[in-house]
Formats: sequence, structure tokens, C-alpha cells
Amino acid sequence: MSAGKDKLGILAGGGPLPGRLARRCLETGRPVFIVAFTGQTEPSSVEGVPHLWTRMGSVGPTLERLHAEGVTELCMIGPVHRPTIRELLPDLRGARMAARIGLGARGDDGLLRGLGEALADEGFRLVGAHDLMEELLAKPGLLTRRAPTDADRADIDRGLLVARAVGAVDVGQGAVVQQGVVLAVEAAEGTDAMLERAGALLRAAGGGVLVKARKPQQDTRLDMPTIGVVTVERAAAAGLAGIAVEADGALIEDAAAVAEAADRLDLFVVCLEPGR
Amino acid sequence: MSAGKDKLGILAGGGPLPGRLARRCLETGRPVFIVAFTGQTEPSSVEGVPHLWTRMGSVGPTLERLHAEGVTELCMIGPVHRPTIRELLPDLRGARMAARIGLGARGDDGLLRGLGEALADEGFRLVGAHDLMEELLAKPGLLTRRAPTDADRADIDRGLLVARAVGAVDVGQGAVVQQGVVLAVEAAEGTDAMLERAGALLRAAGGGVLVKARKPQQDTRLDMPTIGVVTVERAAAAGLAGIAVEADGALIEDAAAVAEAADRLDLFVVCLEPGR
Repeated sequence: MSAGKDKLGILAGGGPLPGRLARRCLETGRPVFIVAFTGQTEPSSVEGVPHLWTRMGSVGPTLERLHAEGVTELCMIGPVHRPTIRELLPDLRGARMAARIGLGARGDDGLLRGLGEALADEGFRLVGAHDLMEELLAKPGLLTRRAPTDADRADIDRGLLVARAVGAVDVGQGAVVQQGVVLAVEAAEGTDAMLERAGALLRAAGGGVLVKARKPQQDTRLDMPTIGVVTVERAAAAGLAGIAVEADGALIEDAAAVAEAADRLDLFVVCLEPGR
Repeated sequence: MSAGKDKLGILAGGGPLPGRLARRCLETGRPVFIVAFTGQTEPSSVEGVPHLWTRMGSVGPTLERLHAEGVTELCMIGPVHRPTIRELLPDLRGARMAARIGLGARGDDGLLRGLGEALADEGFRLVGAHDLMEELLAKPGLLTRRAPTDADRADIDRGLLVARAVGAVDVGQGAVVQQGVVLAVEAAEGTDAMLERAGALLRAAGGGVLVKARKPQQDTRLDMPTIGVVTVERAAAAGLAGIAVEADGALIEDAAAVAEAADRLDLFVVCLEPGR
């Protein structure tokens, strides 16, 4: 955790990470304020933490509140359901920001980058979740008892190639590969829906890996590939053999819990050496 | 239709095209023999045409029959459900061919290319469906009353970029884009399942295009992107504004029927200039 005493604003997506970051701030004495979004943030994230519940579209009041609270650094953390980003930008300030961001001409990453630029223009400094909670960043190595076979490793290589190609055109971050066949590529549906589809296409032949990779051009302060216990459970439900992410290129919500769940469900979870 | 009197073998996938090609042969006096695959070929395709029903895995007997029938040219036509290609390669000759093709190391296109090479080694000359029925090949221009708007054209450009990037890593041929957001990318699930998913993600904001593009490295004798009336109906059911394919880079099962269906359902169908 950075030693800075500047007040941190947390723009809270779903999952446990926003709440964990907030509690970390409280524990280390760093001033913190959470912006919780209806339909996105888990209510437990804001318990005992100064916060504002708002709609994503309510941009003007949110910015004013952040300024009034004296927030200077902002961290976007936790997965956000993408389609709502645009639908919920209705107020005047939101509309101006939407115009500035250039809705309609960009992919997901472009949208997020535009949002980051717009927030910077508002005087906020953006920081990445992994700069504040370094332990989230995937470290190279195998997390589980089960290890990928040679066939799994070939599928991982193919999945990396595909995920990066799709990421390079700013679409998604994930793919599912079984025995060289790409069962599913992630776009707007998100990882969970992709895993469900891949499960329906998986053949009895064995194997099957989920690979998540950072988009090559991605601003890591804004949107890192993230896995957690839920990802492991959904991959197991789909019948996959394991999960691969890039070390230093993905966040793991709770590495010990992920390893425990994967061992229990007999999956491998491997964090590939950077630059592989 | 080529004037050749060499006997043509048709390896029949689904849909109406195998039957249409066979009847064209009969009409023009060209000797023809259909190999129909259980679970793939429509029974109507073989009516009145010399044929063999077989399983895809029954490679030895099929090759022997083709040789015995005096077939010298082969045409693969009609969509094939991919996952079965491998599952159904069980006999000895099939297993040898599978080893030669290199199952496990390739994507769809690699598999098909390997199959083509193996058939060439068996003494057959492979021809593309569009070499035999030139009218199938998409011609540049708008097929429908409805035309793409500027926003649709921007989505088409983005869809082309994405479909080509995904095709370049030998995954799929299609993508669905709405207002710059890539709703779905096609992999093993096929176009119909992708359209259904895209329909569930489509927002009320309007627009939405299906783009199908040839894989850059694809052997056009083996697997051209194909659309037909069913594609139009499924795109309409998904709520899309239209469909774009590449002229000279896609097959249209029946351009007049596709145009009629699209006009009835108020979609556009546009065939983009090659090289765009």
C-alpha cells in the first residue's frame, strides 16, 4: 500500500476487491471514499467506509462530491458490466464527458481510456489497483497441485495467441481452447457467459483451458484481466482442465482462496512468465 | 459450370447447396456422386442423385467408393459442424489421415487444409464450390432496399477489422458490432449461436451488424463464409440492422431469396468491394 495520505477515491465495480481496498486504506490510516454504483458494486464493499451510492450516469454530482470530499487519487477496481457504461451517461456533465470520450467510435478499451483521460482533466490522478495492493498481481508459477500437461500447454499457447489477437483489436481478454480448437472467444458477454458456452461445446476428449491475457495496448490502471474463486468454479462447471493468466498481467482476487478452490475442484491455475 | 466431364464427388455439408450443385451436374450432363454424412447432410440433397450415406469417420470405405465410382474431382460444399470432424475419425485409414493432418496442433482452417492435402495425396483434385457455381459468389453492392447508415458503416469497418484479426489466428469468420461495441465474436459455436448471443446483448439504441469475412490465409476451395435466408432470419430475430460480407470473399446461398427475406424483415445486406 502506498504511504500517501492523499485521499483515495474508489470507483467500485463488482466483486470483493473494492471493499478489500477500502478496508486496507482504513487499516493503514489512509483517507478513503467509495463511489458505489447501483447494480455493480456489492453492498458489503461499502460497510463501515465513507461512501456515496449513485448511478453511473450521475456524473456531475459524483464529480462534485469527490472534489468536496477532497479526493485527489482515483482507483477503478472490480469488474464492471460494460453495456451499462454508455446507457447510464445521461446528465449534462455526463453527456459532455460522453461527447469528449467519443462514444460510438471506440471499443471497450477506448471507452475506458477516454474515461481515464476525462477524469485526469478533472484533476484526479488515476492509480492502478495493483499499485495499491501489490499482492493482487499474479506472480509467475503454478498455484495448484494439478499441473498443465503438454497438451494443456499447447492449448495455453494457442489461447494466448488468440486472446492477444482479439485484445489487439480491443475486443476481449479471454479465450477457451481444447486440443487446439478455439471453443469460445470473449467479447461483450464477459468471462462467465463465455465459460458457459465453452462448457456446452467441450468434447469428452479431455483438456480445455481458459486463457486470459491483457490487451497489448491496455492501460493497466483501468482494466486488468481478473480471476477469482468464482472464475475457478465456473471453469470447473464448464468441465475445463485449468486456467492460465499472465504473471504481472492479471489480478487474482485472493490467490490462496483461488488455489484452494482449484485444488478442491482439481483444476490447474498457472501464471505464465511475462513476455512469454 | 465447368464443361469438364470428369466425375465430380460432392462431400456434402448441410444446407441446400450440395443438392443444388448435384442437380446442376445432372442438368448439364456432368457425372456426379454425393457423399452424404449422417447428421450433416440434408436428406433432400441426395434425392435422385447417385450417393453414399456414411459417417464422417468411415474414411477407408468412403475413399474406396469414390475411387470405385471413378471420381476424380472433389468439392466440399455446405456448412459442417466442426466439433464432429475429429470425433468421427475412428477407422484405421481415418486414424492415419488424422495423424497426417496433425490433429491437436491446428485450428479449424489448419484441419481443413490438412484434409485437403490428404485428399490430394489420394489422387483427387479439389475444386471450390464457387468455381462450379459462379453465381454463388457475392458480388459487390447492396442487395436490399434498406442501406447501411453512416453508423452502420462504421460498425461494418470495425467488424471487418475484428473478423480478420480473429480469422488471422484461425478462429472464426464472424463478428457482431453495435455502435462500436463488439457484442460477439464467432468461434466454434457457429454463426447461429453467435447471433442468438448478440441478440441478448443488443441495446435498444439501434443498429447492429453481422460481418462475415474470409480468413486471410484461407484456402477458398475449402471453407468460404456463407450466408443464406436462415442467416437473414436469425440476424432479424437478434434485432440486427443488417449483414455485411465481402464480395468475392463469401458465398450467398440464393441471392434473390436472401434479398427478398431481408427486404421483408427490413435488414440491409451489403457485399463490400474486395480489398476494402
